[in-house]
Amino acid sequence: MPPSDIPRTLPPMKDLTTENITENVHLVNSQCTDPRLRYLLHRIVTHLHDFCLETRLSSEEWQAGIQFLTQIGQISDDLRHEMILLSDTLGVSSLVDAINHPRQPPATEGTVLGPFHTHDAEDMQHGAVLHSDPDATRLLVLCSIKDTQGRPVDDVKVDVWEGDSKGFYDVQNPNRAGPDGRGVLRSDSEGNFFFQAIVPVPYPIPMDGPVGKMLNALGRHPNRPGHVHFMLDKPGYDLLITALYPRGDPYETSDPVFGVKESLIVDLSTVEDEGMAAKYGVKVGTKLLTHDFVLLSEQEARELRRKNAVEAMEKQGRKVVFHKDLPIPADN
Amino acid sequence: MPPSDIPRTLPPMKDLTTENITENVHLVNSQCTDPRLRYLLHRIVTHLHDFCLETRLSSEEWQAGIQFLTQIGQISDDLRHEMILLSDTLGVSSLVDAINHPRQPPATEGTVLGPFHTHDAEDMQHGAVLHSDPDATRLLVLCSIKDTQGRPVDDVKVDVWEGDSKGFYDVQNPNRAGPDGRGVLRSDSEGNFFFQAIVPVPYPIPMDGPVGKMLNALGRHPNRPGHVHFMLDKPGYDLLITALYPRGDPYETSDPVFGVKESLIVDLSTVEDEGMAAKYGVKVGTKLLTHDFVLLSEQEARELRRKNAVEAMEKQGRKVVFHKDLPIPADN
Repeated sequence: MPPSDIPRTLPPMKDLTTENITENVHLVNSQCTDPRLRYLLHRIVTHLHDFCLETRLSSEEWQAGIQFLTQIGQISDDLRHEMILLSDTLGVSSLVDAINHPRQPPATEGTVLGPFHTHDAEDMQHGAVLHSDPDATRLLVLCSIKDTQGRPVDDVKVDVWEGDSKGFYDVQNPNRAGPDGRGVLRSDSEGNFFFQAIVPVPYPIPMDGPVGKMLNALGRHPNRPGHVHFMLDKPGYDLLITALYPRGDPYETSDPVFGVKESLIVDLSTVEDEGMAAKYGVKVGTKLLTHDFVLLSEQEARELRRKNAVEAMEKQGRKVVFHKDLPIPADN
Repeated sequence: MPPSDIPRTLPPMKDLTTENITENVHLVNSQCTDPRLRYLLHRIVTHLHDFCLETRLSSEEWQAGIQFLTQIGQISDDLRHEMILLSDTLGVSSLVDAINHPRQPPATEGTVLGPFHTHDAEDMQHGAVLHSDPDATRLLVLCSIKDTQGRPVDDVKVDVWEGDSKGFYDVQNPNRAGPDGRGVLRSDSEGNFFFQAIVPVPYPIPMDGPVGKMLNALGRHPNRPGHVHFMLDKPGYDLLITALYPRGDPYETSDPVFGVKESLIVDLSTVEDEGMAAKYGVKVGTKLLTHDFVLLSEQEARELRRKNAVEAMEKQGRKVVFHKDLPIPADN
């Protein structure tokens, strides 16, 4: 009698060839009882096998790919996220963000999280200075948050982070003692928040790891246009991960992580008014970034996601059902 | 004037959406001067993006995937090859082997390398004992190597490895001092070699890492049918990575790494003859495995690979050219 862990419902599997192995892997994975995971695996296996078949992937290339992915894991830790960087540089992060956080006007567009977000940023007061960097050009950041009906949204958790005047994030400093260039604020009762950042500068994504080697092999430059990251989070609203890019950066139209959107490019101005300078605790002449964020409600985002999912599945000729709010083909 | 690292030949890139990001990533990667790498990246990006689009991959799923792949790298080292195990359990390794080492009768079929091959196996003499395992059932392995015309092939480097009587490879022993259950022989002037292995037993692939978690989530059992691995290598012949599986293993038709082929299943017999026992230095009654390997020449394998590649590309409606012996579409 065969052991009990052998599925009796599956046909015996042997003599797999380039012609029949894919369907056999699908058969084995069809034992998965979670319909969404089953669908994801079906698509992953199909794409992986199709890739090997259509490229006739060589054993050496397979070995190089195994090593490349392994090394990406090995260079990663709590502060270095090389796998995210790979996803970013292949356009996957930007695409996943667009799928999950669809926007329609007047909602603020999202962009890539990037590999430099951390969870140790400290709470800070409005007006606080984000950076200890003494060489940077100070930038007063003055923002409002509204919903799509134009109503202010208070008590939004605003997580901000940016690199320093040399283009490095704190996590890239091997002697990092704690967070620098990052902080968490809350929007006030009128939906406003402000803090002192620095004028962001372009910077290369980390090139000393496997992803850097890949970009070099592809002949691609690593320089991101300067930007300040924002993550706006409040229950009932769709999470907004975005960034603002001062206009005129040389890398504005060739971002290696595919994150720039015209609506996120901002014109910096200058604090001219003494009253304003006093109000926000900066000197006259300080650079100024103002921006009005607009959040989608969770419900609005959910409806947009569902509508887009149904359209995408129908384009493949598939009827869709939803499982825990995620689409699976009806015939899965 | 823009910096010199910005490609002037590419159109400006901004406002990427789910509709246009894929073609823009292709455009940036089209700067790659290696036509084969350019083709591989084109297909990788297409499949990754299609996967995200057709599944509407959620941010949480993306994050889980990033962590899964990162952890696979982190658990890997010189002796543990978790990324190979992932490739094995998704049928990719078996497929890549079939693509790269196509066989036609009378050539011996290949199968997966698996994650347990090492490069520190010691040279051993014919008749040597592979294992120090005192609990194992000894197995005399008696083989010949011929070419497709039936001529013996001498001086083939024969790398053999197998698990112990409990189903563990030496590299799974945390106190491993050196190789055990592995060795390297050379075929003699008549193309023969022999050694003492043990009767292989079924064993679970390592389940204490991310791949084990995946198999559990998919409801798949981890047990490979027992086998002895062989790698046969000689310049002028196509590398043969294969394994022999004693008939009747309970997991013979549900191998989690998709490696079993009917032609690689062997019937064990017993050394009955005193003369034979004396000749090979074993006792009468020792279990016996005999097998005749047949190697393809490098030229035969190359022609088969090319023929299969042209057919596969033409099936996609593509004309093929070869670059360093690997196919790329003529319009790449």
